[in-house]
Amino acid sequence: MKLDHIGIAVESIDKAKTFYEELGLSLRAEEEVSEQKVRVAVIPIGESRIELLETLDPEGPVGKFLAKKGQGLHHIAVRVDDIRDAIGRLKARGIEMIDGEPRRGAEGCLVAFVHPRSTGGVLLELTEKNDE
Amino acid sequence: MKLDHIGIAVESIDKAKTFYEELGLSLRAEEEVSEQKVRVAVIPIGESRIELLETLDPEGPVGKFLAKKGQGLHHIAVRVDDIRDAIGRLKARGIEMIDGEPRRGAEGCLVAFVHPRSTGGVLLELTEKNDE
Repeated sequence: MKLDHIGIAVESIDKAKTFYEELGLSLRAEEEVSEQKVRVAVIPIGESRIELLETLDPEGPVGKFLAKKGQGLHHIAVRVDDIRDAIGRLKARGIEMIDGEPRRGAEGCLVAFVHPRSTGGVLLELTEKNDE
Repeated sequence: MKLDHIGIAVESIDKAKTFYEELGLSLRAEEEVSEQKVRVAVIPIGESRIELLETLDPEGPVGKFLAKKGQGLHHIAVRVDDIRDAIGRLKARGIEMIDGEPRRGAEGCLVAFVHPRSTGGVLLELTEKNDE
């Protein structure tokens, strides 16, 4: 298991990325994820990534987060080997899932969100990498 | 560079840790950091750590965070090789530091916080490990 990425909701990728570049990190890619209504700047760090999330739509999940809480840490993602197995184990122990079944994420990954009520207030994404 | 840890402010370590244990992670240690007025549960994950932060004092930094924002993601820490060099470079580029000089953190680390105004709303800690 490892930290796959940290998602940060920002008003402007162009403004926010300056700090990370000055720190010595580099943007690997910038892409639109239309399903989530965001533009994403991907910044690799060690075995993990920082993802700056800029909303394309005030009504999208990041748009609503920005309106309610302002810029800042939005979610973390944990890489697991077998997401279906992880979801099954968690549900069996009474952990509340937002996604009871994995769904398709970016780059063919399978993803499922755990409800913040079960994680100490953290929006936490499980992700299984599809290496095929 | 790598993600050193993610700090999560929680009402109760005992309640919050259940999820991370069910996920298959293990608490390595639980300790009091009296300077920050918190009890910390350290959960290794890959090359990084999740730290659950329970306040010992409503007037401490995590106590105030909980009162204002509730449980959730509190800060992230990035490991750098030379924290003095990093602080110098960032200040020279107009990045706003909370700590203009490194101070002593847990386990002999040197730490310095960057102001959220310069990071896209994220409380971000730089940390240099002292291997001596």
